[in-house]
Amino acid sequence: MPLHPDLLPTTPLSHDQAMRLAIAAAERVRGTTRPNPPVGCVILDARGIAVAAAGTDPVGGPHAEAQALAAAGERARGGTAVVTLEPCHHVGRTPPCTGALVEAGIVEVVHGVADPNPVAAGGADWLVGRGVAVVGGVLAADIADGVLRPWLHWQAHRRPHITLKTAGTVDGLAAATDGSSQWITGHLARRRVHVDRSRRDAIIVGTGTVLADDPRLTARSGDGALLPHQPLRVVVGRKAVPADAAVRGGAGPADPDTPELGGGFRHIQTRDMDRVVDVLADLGLIDVLVEGGPRLAGAFLAAGLVDAIESYVAPGLLGAGTAVVDTGSATTVADIARFRTTGVENLGGDVLIRAVRGPVAGRG
Amino acid sequence: MPLHPDLLPTTPLSHDQAMRLAIAAAERVRGTTRPNPPVGCVILDARGIAVAAAGTDPVGGPHAEAQALAAAGERARGGTAVVTLEPCHHVGRTPPCTGALVEAGIVEVVHGVADPNPVAAGGADWLVGRGVAVVGGVLAADIADGVLRPWLHWQAHRRPHITLKTAGTVDGLAAATDGSSQWITGHLARRRVHVDRSRRDAIIVGTGTVLADDPRLTARSGDGALLPHQPLRVVVGRKAVPADAAVRGGAGPADPDTPELGGGFRHIQTRDMDRVVDVLADLGLIDVLVEGGPRLAGAFLAAGLVDAIESYVAPGLLGAGTAVVDTGSATTVADIARFRTTGVENLGGDVLIRAVRGPVAGRG
Ligand SMILES: NC(=O)c1ccc[n+]([C@@H]2O[C@H](COP(=O)([O-])OP(=O)(O)OC[C@H]3O[C@@H](n4cnc5c(N)ncnc54)[C@H](OP(=O)(O)O)[C@@H]3O)[C@@H](O)[C@H]2O)c1
Ligand SMILES: NC(=O)c1ccc[n+]([C@@H]2O[C@H](COP(=O)([O-])OP(=O)(O)OC[C@H]3O[C@@H](n4cnc5c(N)ncnc54)[C@H](OP(=O)(O)O)[C@@H]3O)[C@@H](O)[C@H]2O)c1
Repeated sequence: MPLHPDLLPTTPLSHDQAMRLAIAAAERVRGTTRPNPPVGCVILDARGIAVAAAGTDPVGGPHAEAQALAAAGERARGGTAVVTLEPCHHVGRTPPCTGALVEAGIVEVVHGVADPNPVAAGGADWLVGRGVAVVGGVLAADIADGVLRPWLHWQAHRRPHITLKTAGTVDGLAAATDGSSQWITGHLARRRVHVDRSRRDAIIVGTGTVLADDPRLTARSGDGALLPHQPLRVVVGRKAVPADAAVRGGAGPADPDTPELGGGFRHIQTRDMDRVVDVLADLGLIDVLVEGGPRLAGAFLAAGLVDAIESYVAPGLLGAGTAVVDTGSATTVADIARFRTTGVENLGGDVLIRAVRGPVAGRG
Repeated sequence: MPLHPDLLPTTPLSHDQAMRLAIAAAERVRGTTRPNPPVGCVILDARGIAVAAAGTDPVGGPHAEAQALAAAGERARGGTAVVTLEPCHHVGRTPPCTGALVEAGIVEVVHGVADPNPVAAGGADWLVGRGVAVVGGVLAADIADGVLRPWLHWQAHRRPHITLKTAGTVDGLAAATDGSSQWITGHLARRRVHVDRSRRDAIIVGTGTVLADDPRLTARSGDGALLPHQPLRVVVGRKAVPADAAVRGGAGPADPDTPELGGGFRHIQTRDMDRVVDVLADLGLIDVLVEGGPRLAGAFLAAGLVDAIESYVAPGLLGAGTAVVDTGSATTVADIARFRTTGVENLGGDVLIRAVRGPVAGRG
């Protein structure tokens, strides 16, 4: 989807500035491009001024580069393409982006992360051979830790990237001892959760949460309307999900066999976490969000399956209650699953900590 | 203490910019001015350029205004004094600041918080009567929520302002189930705790922490050296504090009757929290930091005595262990002690959430 031209800055951009714009274009299409990566592309004209920006269209539609080139038209000639991911170099559902860039008269390609896909890779080398200047690795770590992380994870492991959302007090509690939990975080944080849902492939909760709260798990705007993209809604656990549970109905095509069309419902009726991951992988889900409750979150944690956290911490103390995560097992401090902080946001006083597993990511 | 002139900016400052410099001067003397407030003062010359800045000296020494005026000398004439607190207007251990400002030729006074002390107040009115332009309320909320908060709290309630420090994982755990807790937060956070200690009047822990960890509770720099200002070390609880406990020895004059000279040790041998607060108030302690453990923290929380929190949240999950705060009582969500976030800092990945009780503070 191309950005509206009015949203483009009118002064020449540095590589980093243009890449931030490309990342923003990629973020806008996050959650809608599976199995393709959400990529952003900005075209700078010969003066360095952004004349077009776009993110990947849904599968079958044009890649970010093709859209941005089309929007730029003749202004691309002699210009620079700034792309979050190395331009693809293979004929898939769409023609290779490398050829399109050369044809459009692009003389410089700036990219973020190198394409890890052996079939699509080699684009940078091919471009250099055609006389195009290529700069790789620009903001690569930001991209690899952020918008592209689930897709890169899928390329490397062929299993979904699992983000655990937690929401609780500073003392880590998601509910009081009587079970009450509305509301611990404020409305900005809750709004943010809905936007986040709309950018994921699936939302996962345990049967305990379904039976206690009967949540819809849809992605809604502040006025309750459904956001354009709806994730698959997944419930995990042996107990039955009631026929009238809200999580079964709701938004988008409810056909469980076409979750990629958005919305839909699945019950994965097991406590075997390896089995859960296999089912998610078979469904082709790349970017999933576990929203709890504490015991299902604990099961993902204990199985070493949490790849990232989005933790909303409310500036409050409760002193006793239900923890945001509960493994119920004996621990020593070396057991801590440690994450690397990639972002801290103040959401009306609540603090969102975004963090990822593993070493610093991103290769040029 | 006046700031070194090399630390002053060389271009004209707005009121807000000058006030931020005055706040920084106040922060530098925090913890050393009791029973006086830690105040900062900046003198702008007639062109609006900062020519001097100072914070309050220890009791008996000159106020911030007097020091800044002395450092500015003739350059104060026709200039502006920017002060975090309305200049005092009474003869105490030092002459009134209002008179000194007029004598030095100051033509404009910009202050942050109005003086709540009926004896010292009235300075602004008196200055206006002498033909000095007075602007009040500049960054008043920042000052009242920050550097001046404990002193304002003491003026209003005649009891110490109590900050609870917590340090734990995102799931609110300060230790694993086996009691291990070294290290959950990283070295930047631990360093920050020591600097914070050096700016408090007292550090408080429960007997449980003393018996488990034998902490020194001194304020130390990264190389282990004692920082210039040492808080009083206070232990609360009925059990005896061993004769050889580290908390008894350590820094500064260990005479328990002169804690205001820095350092020193007290055991408040009770579980009655009202009694604890009375003892702290009798000692003239204005700004105290409770460092735990979980049960003593829970006792302060349950008694409604926590005025502010400094919560270090490490981007990790443990799943089971000892919570940072434990009241051990039944709760409902309405019991949450809610705070207002005044600052969020990323300390090498750990997140420090600073928050205060009560409504937005600060009157002009
Ligand atoms: N504040 C928040 O953000 C938030 C979010 C979600 C939930 N909650 C609260 O959490 C509470 C529910 O807590 P909960 O812990 O019972 O719910 P839960 O974690 O959603 O569900 C627990 C259930 O998950 C199933 N499960 C699947 N695999 C498992 C495994 N490997 N190990 C253990 N269990 C597994 C089990 O169900 P089977 O017995 O069916 O196998 C288990 O009973 C509710 O009160 C809800 O309000 C709060
Ligand atoms: N990670 C951190 O930041 C951190 C910081 C501090 C401590 N810790 C850990 O915390 C653990 C100690 O936990 P803890 O809870 O036993 O220690 P604690 O909170 O320091 O001490 C508990 C004791 O406080 C006394 N107390 C005084 N007034 C009380 C009241 N109103 N209600 C209840 N107790 C009151 C009681 O002692 P009497 O029986 O003597 O009356 C009680 O046993 C240690 O393992 C330590 O490592 C961790």
